[in-house]
This record gives sequence, structure tokens and C-alpha cells, in this order.
Amino acid sequence: MYDGAVQDLIDELGQLPGVGPKSAQRIAFHVLAAEPDDIARLATALVEVKAKVRFCEECGNVAESERCRICADERRTYAQICVVEEPKDVVAIERTREYRGKYHVLGGVIDPLRGIGPGDLRIAELLTRLGQHPVEEVILAMDPNIEGEATATYLIRMLGQLEIPVSRLAVGLPAGGDLDYADEVTLGRSFEGRNRING
Amino acid sequence: MYDGAVQDLIDELGQLPGVGPKSAQRIAFHVLAAEPDDIARLATALVEVKAKVRFCEECGNVAESERCRICADERRTYAQICVVEEPKDVVAIERTREYRGKYHVLGGVIDPLRGIGPGDLRIAELLTRLGQHPVEEVILAMDPNIEGEATATYLIRMLGQLEIPVSRLAVGLPAGGDLDYADEVTLGRSFEGRNRING
Repeated sequence: MYDGAVQDLIDELGQLPGVGPKSAQRIAFHVLAAEPDDIARLATALVEVKAKVRFCEECGNVAESERCRICADERRTYAQICVVEEPKDVVAIERTREYRGKYHVLGGVIDPLRGIGPGDLRIAELLTRLGQHPVEEVILAMDPNIEGEATATYLIRMLGQLEIPVSRLAVGLPAGGDLDYADEVTLGRSFEGRNRING
Repeated sequence: MYDGAVQDLIDELGQLPGVGPKSAQRIAFHVLAAEPDDIARLATALVEVKAKVRFCEECGNVAESERCRICADERRTYAQICVVEEPKDVVAIERTREYRGKYHVLGGVIDPLRGIGPGDLRIAELLTRLGQHPVEEVILAMDPNIEGEATATYLIRMLGQLEIPVSRLAVGLPAGGDLDYADEVTLGRSFEGRNRING
């Protein structure tokens, strides 16, 4: 145990995800040795993010005003809405520079073990948007794991009743990867989704 | 890239030791979702530690006043001074509850590759203390690696001239460990330092 303020900082840092007791101690001593200005900037960034950042009223992405940058961008079409789990997925897809439509952030996935059902996600908001704009395609971009699959299955059934075309991201071999390093589920799905090249 | 405040926080978190871009993003979203009070406490802990914590004028340990808790504790004897690299080593030795003497924190190790020589460590302060108190034993507790060994060798030579008894922590097999998992240096040192049981 350290004296008051050092131990307080270690305790607070230890609450962060992925920061164990040893990392918390290491970060605390880094803080002690760092320039006061650098630490003041970190403390300010923490407070500012809580004060400034909210969630976009339209799509649920992080935003610093009522609507996020993407929803406010009139050059982006409502013809496509890409449904993702979390704001970090928006950033990942934006990095591809392939997509010019809008997003819808669910804020999680259906996960019965943690008591998260469809009612806890921003699905009603998605339906409202689909009623407001002439959407030509809903792209489901959930994580390719059990909870993501369950959520996609639920949305496919629901959107099917509305007769809106739905697509899903391809599951397959990662680009640049080795075929014999791929797990059997990925390789199986890659086989299933193979693309005909000629004929 | 995220909007302003989120990206600012990710950038600042990414400066911390052991926090890569993915962890910084994960922590930032944890912060966004957390209770405002919890984040205010973390920000306060960061600022407080810089404002309150300084280094003990006597031993170099972290302290919230001129002298640290251990130096201020009159029940602890000056007969033994245990020399360590960093304040975290004091905490590690205190956890054993075996030691009732004082500490001296060097604030690092001799490391020529990083340009750290004996003059950058709190060695002059150690000599001053040895002149002020009737010290019976100086216990060297550097890390058992190259820089720690070099620092210990330097101190052994210097303290030898002052005719102060010096001891070092035993290097050997970790308690509860497996002999065949020990690296050859540790096992070699453990052999060298074997203790005669009878005769």
C-alpha cells in the first residue's frame, strides 16, 4: 500500500478496462514522473469528454452536437443504412473509405446471458428512420460471433416483414492471411460464400 | 478518427505506458459510458497526485510531507538501510512484513546505454545518511538483472571503502516454482548460494 494520493490514483486506474494492479502502478509512477502539463491535459480530456460528448439523436453514434458528423453531412445518402453495434465500428468502416451512406448504432447486441434483449438496443429508432427516408438497402455489420449473429438474425426477420432489402458483410479469409491459419468456422464460411469467377 | 473530444482523450490515454491505440479506444468508450462521478474521481486523483505527492527528503520514497511514512516512523531502526531502485520496490518489500529498518530509494539504476551514471542516482544522499546514523548493515535490493548488478557492484565497492557491512538479497528458485522451469542463470545462482543444512 502506498500513501494516500498515490494509492487513490492506483485504485482509480485499476477500475479501467484492461488495467490490472501492475499496470495501474506503472501508470501511476509514470504520472508522478511526467510533466504536470501533460497530466493536466489528460485530466481535462477526461472531464471534457464527459461534458461535451453525447450520442447522436438520429443514429446513436458519438457526437458533439445533436447530430453526429455523418448524419449532418448532406452529401451522404440515406439510400443505404449500415447497422453496427458500437461507435468504434463506425470508425472502422469509415477507415475503408468504401461507404457513402448513413449508419445506425445499436448500442450493443442481443445477449440473453447478460440480460440484453432487443428492447435494450436502438431498434425502435432504426424503424423510425426507415419510415422517414426511402432506404434501398440495410447493411448488417454486426461482429461475426454468436451475439452478433443472433442480433442479425433478429433484424433480418424484422426487416423482412417490412420488405426492405437487407445485406450482410461477407465472412471469409482475412486479406493477407494464411489459409491454413484460418479457424475452421471462418474457412467453412469462406467456402460457403465463394464467388463464381467465370461461366 | 473520432470527433474532437473523444479523439483528444484517445490521444492522451495513448501516451500512458502499456496503453496502445486499441486499449486507449476501449478505455475512452468505457469513460463515455461510465458514471460522471467515477470519471471526475479519476481526473481528481490524477491532479491530486501531482499536487500532493513529492519525494521524501531523506530516503527518496514517495511522500505527502517532507518525510515519508517510513522515515517518520520512530519505531523503525536505522541499524539497517535497504537500498532499492524505485518506490515500488519499497512497497514490495513492505508486503513481506519481514523488515523493520529504513529504506533508501536510488531513483533508478546505473545504465550507460541510457546515459544514467552514478551521479544521476541518490547516492550522495545515501552517504550523508550513513554519516548521520550508526548503520550496522546496508542491504542491497536491486533487481537481479544487468543494470541492477552493475549498480550493486558499484555500491559494494564504494561502501567497502567505508567499512560498512553490506549484504544482498538471495538469488535462487522462486518459492512454489518448478526447478525445471527455472532459467539456467537462476538455477546456477541458486546452486552457488546453496545453504548447508547440517555438519
